[in-house]
Amino acid sequence: MDPERLTRKIEDAVRHCGALMRGADRERAFVEQKEGHGNFVTFYDRQNQEYLKETLTGLLPGAVFVGEEEDVHGDILKGFSFVADPIDGTMNFIRDYRESAVSVALLQDAVPVIGVVYNPYLDEMFTAAAGMGARMNGKRIRVSGRPLRESVVLFGTSPYYEALTALSFRVAEAYCRNGLDIRRSGSAALDLCDIAMGRAEIFFEMRLSPWDYAAGSLIVREAGGQVTQADLSPLCFTAPCSVFARGSGIRDGERPAEILKTLGNA
Amino acid sequence: MDPERLTRKIEDAVRHCGALMRGADRERAFVEQKEGHGNFVTFYDRQNQEYLKETLTGLLPGAVFVGEEEDVHGDILKGFSFVADPIDGTMNFIRDYRESAVSVALLQDAVPVIGVVYNPYLDEMFTAAAGMGARMNGKRIRVSGRPLRESVVLFGTSPYYEALTALSFRVAEAYCRNGLDIRRSGSAALDLCDIAMGRAEIFFEMRLSPWDYAAGSLIVREAGGQVTQADLSPLCFTAPCSVFARGSGIRDGERPAEILKTLGNA
Repeated sequence: MDPERLTRKIEDAVRHCGALMRGADRERAFVEQKEGHGNFVTFYDRQNQEYLKETLTGLLPGAVFVGEEEDVHGDILKGFSFVADPIDGTMNFIRDYRESAVSVALLQDAVPVIGVVYNPYLDEMFTAAAGMGARMNGKRIRVSGRPLRESVVLFGTSPYYEALTALSFRVAEAYCRNGLDIRRSGSAALDLCDIAMGRAEIFFEMRLSPWDYAAGSLIVREAGGQVTQADLSPLCFTAPCSVFARGSGIRDGERPAEILKTLGNA
Repeated sequence: MDPERLTRKIEDAVRHCGALMRGADRERAFVEQKEGHGNFVTFYDRQNQEYLKETLTGLLPGAVFVGEEEDVHGDILKGFSFVADPIDGTMNFIRDYRESAVSVALLQDAVPVIGVVYNPYLDEMFTAAAGMGARMNGKRIRVSGRPLRESVVLFGTSPYYEALTALSFRVAEAYCRNGLDIRRSGSAALDLCDIAMGRAEIFFEMRLSPWDYAAGSLIVREAGGQVTQADLSPLCFTAPCSVFARGSGIRDGERPAEILKTLGNA
């Protein structure tokens, strides 16, 4: 199947999940605590995951499926694999704080080749295919070229990894002082799409899992931005890592560890 | 005019402004820098303000109008006054980061008696009249009763007052460690409405202006929450002050200055 046709099929599946989220019966959000502070799963995470697994592997028989709500990581190093977050921003979803998304990436030999992220509340469908650019609702999008001093910085607090919280706040404060302001939405997938749209210039989080950034990182790259780990090393798609995404006006020397030095003893 | 009818008239005016925001031509967002770091105004702020001033004072002849984009503060201590923010979350609006609102309060002798906040992107209309409860799109809403350890905390960085930034980040980190997580939307009016909806339990910002919180604070109170300054003293509606809003599960001892002590030398 060609990438454009496959992307449209993934969009259909993701839109179906988004409709379920929009119409969610809040009483059925059966919250369960998972491992890690503030880590939850609901009936809808599981239902979306079931649906995505069946639909996506039907599109590409033989592809491995890796989802947030299932810790069976098949071998994604060779061949095709789908890496999916059935609801990115689960805590927001539980609270009806409307910043959640469905995120699906298709990887070939552990490298993203298609990325789809859908915000059901604003009906924004972000897509990218390797080498073919990034789009929002079909229209080409590009990252911002604004420099750091004119930047809005999005960040995650890595709430499931408490040891990283203090560092995350220090870095966020340093960016806030060197740029315009910071935002924290609670959905890494949507933050990456906002970077791709040029709505903000920097996103960082000190630890995320591949399903959080597999799709969004391709969307940022295809929109002209860069995505690496915080130390500028390549992203890893087989294990958790830090994520640093930026528009074209942000320099290597403005990465988290360097910007932290500007905070001094403020 | 009775409060219900007046509220509906204010809703109509605010909805008109929201439609302009949704359909904004981004090239016309004529950004101008105002006093303070990251403080901007656009063509649409001015246009909404003009429209609100004319429409609202027409509803209640003799009422004073106080808007963000006009520093003529009439005497609001006696009689009726409208306190309006034509676009709360201007930086978000400029960036098409869809977290902005139109906020209008009617005050009688400097006390809010009607509050209306509209989010045009999600089409959420928040309203309250003193003693008559708070509503979202006509349906009664209530604050959350969750305790601090199950709380989501919204905060503002007071970006126009750089001296308050370090304190704001320390308090946010302390809440993050004692609750579940933090969010930063960039619109104080929407943050207050999210508290009223029970989507989050705490909102704080170390310095805001009356047009940022006049409407939202009434909406929180009418939804069963409390809104004070950070030290629990009453809000001021004639000059800037700090704002601390909370659901019914948050205690006096969990205010910013007290929670900060839990951070220790972390």
